[in-house]
Amino acid sequence: MGGDHGPPVVVEGVSLALDRLSGRRVRFLLHGDEARIGAELARRPGARAACEVRHTDLVVAGDEKPATALRRGKGTSLWNAIEAVKAGEADAAVSAGNTGALMAVSKMILRMAGGLDRPAIVASWPTMRGVSAVLDVGANIASDAAQLVEFAIMGEAFYCAVHGGADCRPSVGLLNVGSEDVKGHEEVREAHRLLREAGLELDYYGFVEGNDIAKGTVDVVVTDGFTGNIALKTAEGMARFFSTALRETLTSSPMAKAGALIASGALKAMRARLDPSSVNGGPLLGLNGVVVKSHGGADARGFANAIKVAADLAASDYAEHIARNMERLTAALHETAATAENGA
Amino acid sequence: MGGDHGPPVVVEGVSLALDRLSGRRVRFLLHGDEARIGAELARRPGARAACEVRHTDLVVAGDEKPATALRRGKGTSLWNAIEAVKAGEADAAVSAGNTGALMAVSKMILRMAGGLDRPAIVASWPTMRGVSAVLDVGANIASDAAQLVEFAIMGEAFYCAVHGGADCRPSVGLLNVGSEDVKGHEEVREAHRLLREAGLELDYYGFVEGNDIAKGTVDVVVTDGFTGNIALKTAEGMARFFSTALRETLTSSPMAKAGALIASGALKAMRARLDPSSVNGGPLLGLNGVVVKSHGGADARGFANAIKVAADLAASDYAEHIARNMERLTAALHETAATAENGA
Repeated sequence: MGGDHGPPVVVEGVSLALDRLSGRRVRFLLHGDEARIGAELARRPGARAACEVRHTDLVVAGDEKPATALRRGKGTSLWNAIEAVKAGEADAAVSAGNTGALMAVSKMILRMAGGLDRPAIVASWPTMRGVSAVLDVGANIASDAAQLVEFAIMGEAFYCAVHGGADCRPSVGLLNVGSEDVKGHEEVREAHRLLREAGLELDYYGFVEGNDIAKGTVDVVVTDGFTGNIALKTAEGMARFFSTALRETLTSSPMAKAGALIASGALKAMRARLDPSSVNGGPLLGLNGVVVKSHGGADARGFANAIKVAADLAASDYAEHIARNMERLTAALHETAATAENGA
Repeated sequence: MGGDHGPPVVVEGVSLALDRLSGRRVRFLLHGDEARIGAELARRPGARAACEVRHTDLVVAGDEKPATALRRGKGTSLWNAIEAVKAGEADAAVSAGNTGALMAVSKMILRMAGGLDRPAIVASWPTMRGVSAVLDVGANIASDAAQLVEFAIMGEAFYCAVHGGADCRPSVGLLNVGSEDVKGHEEVREAHRLLREAGLELDYYGFVEGNDIAKGTVDVVVTDGFTGNIALKTAEGMARFFSTALRETLTSSPMAKAGALIASGALKAMRARLDPSSVNGGPLLGLNGVVVKSHGGADARGFANAIKVAADLAASDYAEHIARNMERLTAALHETAATAENGA
């Protein structure tokens, strides 16, 4: 029921995802208004065969406070979708609804996975070299060193599950204001130390700067949720600015218009490649279960992509991948604590 | 002597600035190697007439630690340029050299202006509506609420001096991860409260998000130096990505090439408009004196722009503009402290 468009985009997205995932046996539980969803399914017999509708009248509004959504509890389409994951009826949940409410309800129902302290939202960001994963982009407003290292662990496992192939060994960078060890605040410097010394199975590159994101210097960029959210939205704003400026430029004179017309196919392909919001599907990492947030404004193709991300995560061993590195991190943190005690 | 190119770009920049500032009587002190600077001036008699060379053999290297530059003390071209401001021989200093060293030496020699706690580096950022001022973009790695409010005061005065006209009344926004009062960490929420309630002479808009920067929602965007530096470099990276993708796209097929050729004039004009690094000249605000940092890689046109920013600031009443609002802020902070004491 969520997002700017509701059932029409979701059902068309399901239909497109079934085509893209045709090798796999994927089935869907659709939570929400049976009449509205049914009307969409009636027009898509292919999708209908793979879907079961779970009716509810209750919907979490786009501007509803997370606390309100939590208090209302059971029965909303959002709540029911997450509860189906908890109950093992679904391997993953996908929602285009209220991000804050989705995060709060998911944390409440699914709880954090073993040892992890905080969830993170990860964005797939188009770069000169392909796609990088950037996290956290908004689940938290501040993070300590251990949490940043957890983000690195989660992001690396996510990258392998969704963007990596076999023998995936993504590089991981920590976002900072300079590349020397002494740069940045206490939290990033301590996270830097842990990532180098904790013996994680993870290819840690070191510090990266803002311009390294679009360059694709590393596959996974780790930062706190405040900085990550602002970096992502700044980039989305820049992408929109370029796109507007390009359109204005190419209609500014008869010559420019003629050129644009001739080059139009190539230009259209390019525009889709640049916007971070074009690679849709931002998982909430760190929970006992797969939950993927689709952009509220995503179209059916975007929603299908979010479904594919969810299916990839659900089919992967990313939870075990995370658990293995979390064991190593826990051991390293104990050692740091012991050293500090002996030193005192 | 600073920057990637040294004297050739600086002297050509001086020459271009003299043309652009022809209505004003601008003169230059050039600090550095007399032979190298003299050779450049010999080829530009117009510039030579407006310049006096102050020889020194000592140069701060681009990768020199700020602490080293401070320890070396007097005699480097960087040090001498700042000392000339302190001595009243120059109304402003412009350098394309080592940013950290420039900051450290400027703070040491000029000291902070009345009541201000920390300097800030401000960037002029191209937007859909023109240019916005964004600060701090790297002088600090963390900022408390009162410092963020100081940045707002400094940024507003800078905008009026450099980008505003008569009756300038720029709008000021505080960068955050959402627009509601409850969003963000303690520091931004407290700064938000102060900006609304401290009775400053300043048009405070409220919170803005990352995508608002390129949109030009406000004239002045305030944030801490960590977030601001990463946002700026992320945007510069996106601008380069965009420019590269556009070039690749427009050479990807004979059709695209033909289109690009026809539209080339318009495309070239557009590219220059988009990159935040294209609007060169980032003042170090908050000091007793005007110091402007030019991008190390800037060409002569960029360096001339940094000179123009310095001349505009030096000719403006921005120091008094800041002082007036700082008095109001100090009164408001005393009141907050008094209320807290009475409440305790």
